[in-house]
Amino acid sequence: MIAAAIDTPAVLIDLDTAEANIRAYQRYCDEHRLKLRPHIKTHKLPGLAEYQLAQGAVGITCQKVSEAEAMVNAGRMQDVLIAYNILGEAKVSRLRRLAERVNISVVADNIVVANGLSQGFADADRPLPVLVECNTGAERCGVPTPAAAADLALDIAALPGLAFAGLMTYPPAGQTASVTAWLSQARDLIISRGLEVPVISSGGSPDMWHAHEKSAATEYRVGTYVYNDRSLVERKVCGWQDCALTVLSTVVSVSGKHAIIDAGSKALTSDLFGLEGHGFVPDRPNLFIDLLSEEHGRVVSRDGALDLKIGDRLRIVPNHACVVSNLFDTVVLLRGDRHVGEARVAARGQVW
Amino acid sequence: MIAAAIDTPAVLIDLDTAEANIRAYQRYCDEHRLKLRPHIKTHKLPGLAEYQLAQGAVGITCQKVSEAEAMVNAGRMQDVLIAYNILGEAKVSRLRRLAERVNISVVADNIVVANGLSQGFADADRPLPVLVECNTGAERCGVPTPAAAADLALDIAALPGLAFAGLMTYPPAGQTASVTAWLSQARDLIISRGLEVPVISSGGSPDMWHAHEKSAATEYRVGTYVYNDRSLVERKVCGWQDCALTVLSTVVSVSGKHAIIDAGSKALTSDLFGLEGHGFVPDRPNLFIDLLSEEHGRVVSRDGALDLKIGDRLRIVPNHACVVSNLFDTVVLLRGDRHVGEARVAARGQVW
Repeated sequence: MIAAAIDTPAVLIDLDTAEANIRAYQRYCDEHRLKLRPHIKTHKLPGLAEYQLAQGAVGITCQKVSEAEAMVNAGRMQDVLIAYNILGEAKVSRLRRLAERVNISVVADNIVVANGLSQGFADADRPLPVLVECNTGAERCGVPTPAAAADLALDIAALPGLAFAGLMTYPPAGQTASVTAWLSQARDLIISRGLEVPVISSGGSPDMWHAHEKSAATEYRVGTYVYNDRSLVERKVCGWQDCALTVLSTVVSVSGKHAIIDAGSKALTSDLFGLEGHGFVPDRPNLFIDLLSEEHGRVVSRDGALDLKIGDRLRIVPNHACVVSNLFDTVVLLRGDRHVGEARVAARGQVW
Repeated sequence: MIAAAIDTPAVLIDLDTAEANIRAYQRYCDEHRLKLRPHIKTHKLPGLAEYQLAQGAVGITCQKVSEAEAMVNAGRMQDVLIAYNILGEAKVSRLRRLAERVNISVVADNIVVANGLSQGFADADRPLPVLVECNTGAERCGVPTPAAAADLALDIAALPGLAFAGLMTYPPAGQTASVTAWLSQARDLIISRGLEVPVISSGGSPDMWHAHEKSAATEYRVGTYVYNDRSLVERKVCGWQDCALTVLSTVVSVSGKHAIIDAGSKALTSDLFGLEGHGFVPDRPNLFIDLLSEEHGRVVSRDGALDLKIGDRLRIVPNHACVVSNLFDTVVLLRGDRHVGEARVAARGQVW
């Protein structure tokens, strides 16, 4: 029973579950001699990042300079990979200041970004480590071929202020063999041209328990595993009991056919991730959230009576946990059902 | 040409366009003797709310107590309708404190909510005005029938601390005749039972230029009209030149087939509103944003060459403006293309 004093809508984080998720995946990585570099985008909480590091993570991953700044300012972070093309003098100069405080590495998939980084770091005390981002099939960022990866690696190694630091990919889910082949080929090409490839960084929660099959990777980045969510349960990566983030909501209106809860797209987001409906209520599996507006969620029953009354509270596992973390300034911390505090979501809304 | 100093992704607000939108709709309401009570959920900015009031709005609409608190704390607001079932002692007691500072009215669609409000206001100096929310077909909140509206109106009028203040609906789009019939019938029933119906409040941007045809309504609530967005352009409610909110983004990666911009679902949101793709670039109508992840937007061409290079900036009209406002702590203020300042989004993230 969640404390009645917790007003809704609220994001609840069960620390026991989150910490168990962190330990379990660290164990897996240790067993398979993979370095774990968790992505903080899911929790955006310095406290949980520190727990990840204490369990053995080699560093953290951020997506934007501002996320890295927020984490470094609020927690004890010594090693941050920003897995994004950092472009523009303003961002590069902030990156430089951050790199003077902690170990920062970044990625690039093109020479324009690499040149910009070089200009910003040409007179730095230490070169900036830059990994080449590889498009191994997810069709987002990344150089298109292993040959292009090798070319860019050599360009980076030759640029003042930069050090080539390895390869990085956000791979397509379920395509371990082709991703491994791509990365191995790029690695071998680069070595044959006289450079070392210190790190090969792959990632993604959907394939997290198959990370060791990506034999080319030396490091794995994973974010959602800390909380899990409906999308990962539906993909059978975890179970409902492993979901550490839930949205607590209250029924504010009931009609014959539906009920309205006080959690809409401002709490659950519109992310569908290929699913139907907007989250799942493990305690009431017959319920289905069929419609969201900004402050309203509409709940119907898919099986049997709706059986909801005004004031009832529902604890919802969202489709996608990371985007929910980005909507709330604070989250409520639990251990089991016990309320143990609140945490400010330090890296929320960091888009730059 | 937007100032290069504005880093991306950024939410740009063209104040000239926003103010023109506000004046145009105020003129329409004045002509048709409708009271205008704009919903601040779209801009969440005290400054624009003050402009709306200065042009003749009778007050503002908020959806949550916390939104009303943020607006009253940061701006000159004297009259606020919170168009939501306020439930629970914590929220009702905050509502009471707010009602001691400015004129607050709320809605209820059930007796549980009405009883809770009554308990909180029984010993207040002034009764709390409560409108009955009516489900006129949108199937969200609201009493189901005109007879139920009349029953709840009489209950509210009889409860200590409350005053029955009228009817409120968020109507289904495009069904003016049936909504008018519903509201008229409820009004006449209530009058026949001895109560006055001071206000009939309807709303919604899609039907905003037909508001005068809803002859039963005395007041209209509209939010999105201040900025407009792709969904309203596609419904032919406005044109691209009327869109005051745009998301400025930068191309950070280019492949043969697509480009990646630094605006993903953390900037544009996943709201589709029945549309394909994630926003529209009026300056480059051949471009189509076919995929979002949190920090990446993927851009393809639907017609002709992609013709984008790294560092190019795109100004995107999002599918849904209101939810974009909720993601950014600050927005950039423009007049035309001239950069005139920044504004803190005071009512962002207010969910309670």
